Amino acid sequence: MGRAKYAGDLKVPGMLHGAILRSPYAHARIVSIDTSAALALPGVRAVLTGDDAPNTLWGGGPVKDRYILAKKVVRFAGEEVVAVAAISEDIARDALDLIRVEYEELPALLTTDEAMDPEAPTVHPGRKDNVAHEIRFHRGDVDAAFAKADLVYEATYTTSSQYPGYLEPMVSVASLEADDRLHVWTSTQTVSLARARIAKALELPISSVRVSQQTTGGGFGGKIVEDDNQLVAGLLALRTRRPVRLLNNRLEDFLSCCTSVPERITLKLGMTREGIIVAKDVRIVADCGAYAGLAGEVMHVSSMRSDNMFRNANVRCDAELVYTNTPPHGAFRGFGGSQMLFALNSHIDSMARELGLDPAAIYERNAIGAGDTTVHGWKIRSTGFKQCVANATAAVDWAAKRAAPRGTGVRRRGLGLAAAMHVCGNRTMGNWDGSTVAIKLNEDGGIVAQCGECDMGQGAMTMLTQIIANEFKVPLSQVRLMPPDTDSAPYALGSFASRVTMSAGNAAIKACRSARAKLLVLAEDLLQADPGSLELADGGGVQVRGTDRRLGLDELARAHIWRHGGEGFQVTETWDPPTEEPDSDLYGNCAPTHSFAAQTVEVEVDTETGQVTVLGSYLSDDLGKALNPTAVHGQANGGCVQAMGWALYEQLKLEDGRIANGNFADYTMATAESVPLLHADFVETNDPIGPYGAKASSETAILMAAPAIANAVYDAVGVRIRDLPITPERVLAALQAKKEQQGAANA
Amino acid sequence: MGRAKYAGDLKVPGMLHGAILRSPYAHARIVSIDTSAALALPGVRAVLTGDDAPNTLWGGGPVKDRYILAKKVVRFAGEEVVAVAAISEDIARDALDLIRVEYEELPALLTTDEAMDPEAPTVHPGRKDNVAHEIRFHRGDVDAAFAKADLVYEATYTTSSQYPGYLEPMVSVASLEADDRLHVWTSTQTVSLARARIAKALELPISSVRVSQQTTGGGFGGKIVEDDNQLVAGLLALRTRRPVRLLNNRLEDFLSCCTSVPERITLKLGMTREGIIVAKDVRIVADCGAYAGLAGEVMHVSSMRSDNMFRNANVRCDAELVYTNTPPHGAFRGFGGSQMLFALNSHIDSMARELGLDPAAIYERNAIGAGDTTVHGWKIRSTGFKQCVANATAAVDWAAKRAAPRGTGVRRRGLGLAAAMHVCGNRTMGNWDGSTVAIKLNEDGGIVAQCGECDMGQGAMTMLTQIIANEFKVPLSQVRLMPPDTDSAPYALGSFASRVTMSAGNAAIKACRSARAKLLVLAEDLLQADPGSLELADGGGVQVRGTDRRLGLDELARAHIWRHGGEGFQVTETWDPPTEEPDSDLYGNCAPTHSFAAQTVEVEVDTETGQVTVLGSYLSDDLGKALNPTAVHGQANGGCVQAMGWALYEQLKLEDGRIANGNFADYTMATAESVPLLHADFVETNDPIGPYGAKASSETAILMAAPAIANAVYDAVGVRIRDLPITPERVLAALQAKKEQQGAANA
Repeated sequence: MGRAKYAGDLKVPGMLHGAILRSPYAHARIVSIDTSAALALPGVRAVLTGDDAPNTLWGGGPVKDRYILAKKVVRFAGEEVVAVAAISEDIARDALDLIRVEYEELPALLTTDEAMDPEAPTVHPGRKDNVAHEIRFHRGDVDAAFAKADLVYEATYTTSSQYPGYLEPMVSVASLEADDRLHVWTSTQTVSLARARIAKALELPISSVRVSQQTTGGGFGGKIVEDDNQLVAGLLALRTRRPVRLLNNRLEDFLSCCTSVPERITLKLGMTREGIIVAKDVRIVADCGAYAGLAGEVMHVSSMRSDNMFRNANVRCDAELVYTNTPPHGAFRGFGGSQMLFALNSHIDSMARELGLDPAAIYERNAIGAGDTTVHGWKIRSTGFKQCVANATAAVDWAAKRAAPRGTGVRRRGLGLAAAMHVCGNRTMGNWDGSTVAIKLNEDGGIVAQCGECDMGQGAMTMLTQIIANEFKVPLSQVRLMPPDTDSAPYALGSFASRVTMSAGNAAIKACRSARAKLLVLAEDLLQADPGSLELADGGGVQVRGTDRRLGLDELARAHIWRHGGEGFQVTETWDPPTEEPDSDLYGNCAPTHSFAAQTVEVEVDTETGQVTVLGSYLSDDLGKALNPTAVHGQANGGCVQAMGWALYEQLKLEDGRIANGNFADYTMATAESVPLLHADFVETNDPIGPYGAKASSETAILMAAPAIANAVYDAVGVRIRDLPITPERVLAALQAKKEQQGAANA
Repeated sequence: MGRAKYAGDLKVPGMLHGAILRSPYAHARIVSIDTSAALALPGVRAVLTGDDAPNTLWGGGPVKDRYILAKKVVRFAGEEVVAVAAISEDIARDALDLIRVEYEELPALLTTDEAMDPEAPTVHPGRKDNVAHEIRFHRGDVDAAFAKADLVYEATYTTSSQYPGYLEPMVSVASLEADDRLHVWTSTQTVSLARARIAKALELPISSVRVSQQTTGGGFGGKIVEDDNQLVAGLLALRTRRPVRLLNNRLEDFLSCCTSVPERITLKLGMTREGIIVAKDVRIVADCGAYAGLAGEVMHVSSMRSDNMFRNANVRCDAELVYTNTPPHGAFRGFGGSQMLFALNSHIDSMARELGLDPAAIYERNAIGAGDTTVHGWKIRSTGFKQCVANATAAVDWAAKRAAPRGTGVRRRGLGLAAAMHVCGNRTMGNWDGSTVAIKLNEDGGIVAQCGECDMGQGAMTMLTQIIANEFKVPLSQVRLMPPDTDSAPYALGSFASRVTMSAGNAAIKACRSARAKLLVLAEDLLQADPGSLELADGGGVQVRGTDRRLGLDELARAHIWRHGGEGFQVTETWDPPTEEPDSDLYGNCAPTHSFAAQTVEVEVDTETGQVTVLGSYLSDDLGKALNPTAVHGQANGGCVQAMGWALYEQLKLEDGRIANGNFADYTMATAESVPLLHADFVETNDPIGPYGAKASSETAILMAAPAIANAVYDAVGVRIRDLPITPERVLAALQAKKEQQGAANA
């Protein structure tokens, strides 16, 4: 309806507009900055350099390695160097052209190979070998298990970096309020973590910062805490004492957002001839770009999450996160799961072919079961994994179609299968993963609820509204959820790790049931009824069972105020999942429960052009229970399409470390014409602790399309693409290589 | 510092500006309205008449007798007839000039005498005798008591209407938000009652309205729920679907605010020769103007509150609230107490003189005591009444100065005394008079508190901040009180009846102590300490008594989140006073406790000009305990000056029912040059249920200056002025009459 207010829509009296001058070099020393001409431009109110920014280092994750504005050195092309505030966006951008920065270009490390060269300079002083983070673990006895395996297979996969592609680029309005607090209205997945980060980076007490989420036009992991936008907006507001709006244009958003982490994964699996996985050894080299952000946490997920799908007890991992002089990478929907699952699902397909097995059988035979504890100590409460595989294969007539001859035409079809799991929350930010919901009843029976978790389009607010309406037996329109604001909302971690349905959903149920119990006690007294005789009435309120003696929510709300010891009706409850923080060896049941899924795709490969067309997709999603079928179908489809983009089209192109395709014309996301009709079902496993049995949806759906497509390409034309994206060039080259290989064999 | 944001300062994108065309006639039929020329003016977005307004009647009090825009009939000069919204305030006002309204003037009832004439037409159809409200009670046996009294004295007093004179005229910004709710930012003393009223008048559910208080530049009772400003702003926003700002200019504010209720009080008291009051009979005719508003509640207070100062058990009251075709009157600081206390204190002075007693002795001999239950069932928990009288008289050397000869010069001096009581809350809006305070701890130990009571300059927010800071042993700067907003704040009645210090203050203490108890339990665990060994630390936090083992509030706040079953630290508590709703005979202990006060003034009367100059004032205020001495001194001084204005200068002048002096040049409020150095003390009775012993301040201070001045004028020149204001003309006329009387007597 066009009514939603995004942060960029805000107009605050006296508001200035910000703009940022960015480094054109991947690595350079800042020799000098001359801001005088920019400052002299009428309408310009501030021109700030690194000298005007705090000396505190900030970081989206635990590693603090970045300044709000570069000091002395720039480490990637796009890094924030000078910030301007002016009375209009045009003037601010004009001022950028008047700033003279003298750089001394330094050698840039543009690949992890260059960065890991023992002779290479360091991206950050003191960061030996340019390693930002390491993850190493070994459980069971991997070498012994490989020795006993019937088939050991090793291959290396590479994944490219994906831009989140939300329609709303990052934007903030920051204002120093009358009480000297910095108020930031912004596009975010988390108000509390954003507040803590802004406060720390700007050297303010947490209580001196207020963050209000505005309608957020997509996040996909990119709006957690890795942007510099909120910090520059805040800095400009502090220095000018005027409200400042800072809106990335699309190119700026490409340059400054955290795209997904590219990984090189060398995977070695051992299997019995029956397809039982007995050992896994993996080496990961992940590229965080110039600043670590959340990339270490992403690599953590790549390292271990998918191990928990299977019963295999022998796993070893050596993962290194490496700094390069490229734009930073970080959190992205799927959070590292996609990278490893591309390798793992491709690998299973390859090994199944080697062993003459149906890959579906391998998933079936290795699947972790409900009640099992995994190799990493995860407790599986419910799983529809086998059912998802069965559904996804049955839906495409898997066995029959796979058995049919592929033909010899120019265009050949193939089927691919992949499977995945995801968490529903993650107790890894500290020893809490809970959520709090507060409920008030207005005098007309209207329900006002507060929850600090953010909706960035995934439907969290609708889901909570549904739960509350359901618990009170009222229409959705009677429930209003207030937007997250650090002043008014209870403390909340925010929307990531697919945690909101689980934690906030359960908190909402708990708060509603507390409220209902309170209403029943109140009604007992007012209706002079026996406790056991009362029940919640349809449409809200309480009635004596089987009679028309009834009090509406409005009457109860008023009666709760207007009495001795009365007060406005309010209830607050928190639900914290029964999970544990992983120990120093990363062992521990960090998620309350897990979502599983499987996906089959059918592709057609044009053997003359190398073009891969996805003809069909079927995704079977164990989300516990579909609370909002329309919304979760949308999430499944959206995740699937985003994964198809990553698999086939999307790729940040760097030239000398500079993003060369930072716009929607050149950075080709999947469009309607490249997407077939998508099919999906829900496997409702009715999780024992999920709200009404629900688990997470959405993130699971992005994890499988890439390997399913790669597997289908192999199925169609017999070539294995292990490097994303699966471009026509790569397919053609592989077909050519295969032809030469066959020719050589025949010769 | 100029940083506070008033509602008039708000600039909302797309905001229109409203303006109102008002009736020039005191009473007329609206024959026709031609809005076509106004609508054609470029920039005009809406021109609304009564036909565009809801048919629901609204009223500030229980009587609903008013439309948002007049329908068919206007009942006072100034009534809202047409509302315009335009892109600028200038255009909106220009448009008013283009509207053609044809009126048929009707006979106007401009005085209560005219309105009470049995032959008079009715101001409202069906309102027999133009009586809007009646209060009648009789306790004890008044006639029998009069029969036994040594002195029975009767006289009639009239009081004039006072404009509240806040510096910020009434203003609202209303906006239909994305969720179709009407958001009203306004200058108000109560967000919850404003919301309920706006919703009802605009025929919306309560939950579809949100009210946010902006910084409020004075209220003095005039910003409770009697304005039409919020309603017209809301109507314009609903009809235009654009934000609308509606700011009264000063004349409009004079025309449309509720000025204080003028009363004619015929008071008859019986006393023994020792000055013991044995019977009181009072008749009140109060003028509510064209619409009843809260004037009935004001008259209720006039009728009975001051009875509770004394032990007299025989009281009778016949009070009538009468409609006239004059601008409405209603709530005003002191809320009806001022009117009756003018009569009562004047009367006591007269009778004391008749009996040859010191009036101070009369207060002393009749004073209600702590532990007493009054004639109306009020339970007196604490009283410094006698001490206040003793202090106020001692401070001016009362006995000696009164005994000294008055001299015969042109300018003669005199002393006057008056005393008063006031409530600290009032359980008369329904069976609740409580308040709720919610407290959150941020991760840095900052405290965020929410309370829905409004600060309109009286210092409520500072008082609550002080209490919370004191309870947590932290500096004031560590506590932030959020401004009242119906979405985020707990339900609260608002700021009137001097209820906030008592109810919200106690709720704040209760919430803090709950929070402290919770912190101690948490710290026991974290510090592994015995329960008895812990105490609150200075600067916040918890320590093991006598050691340096200590956890700061920041550490405790974080530890409260980061643990199994953790959550953000939050506590909500309500305090509802142990009072009762008055019964149908208006009997019952409606207030938790009571403030008492006495005041002496010294005046100089110029016998040639009639000019009365106040030379000194001493106010002794039993406020229980001064929580913020600077603020309550300010309140005492402000109340005293406002009362001096009412006593000597202020008077709405009506010509044909039209306010003729609706500006600060012609409506003469007391200015610095007319006010002497004001002295005041606090009698700290340490009330048993007040927060830290505190009771209400502020309203008590406005109740005494008028009678104290009238009594001082009598003391100075021997004339009794029973009609306010005590203008030079009235004094001169009285002196003249006295001279003639003396002449006649001498002749």
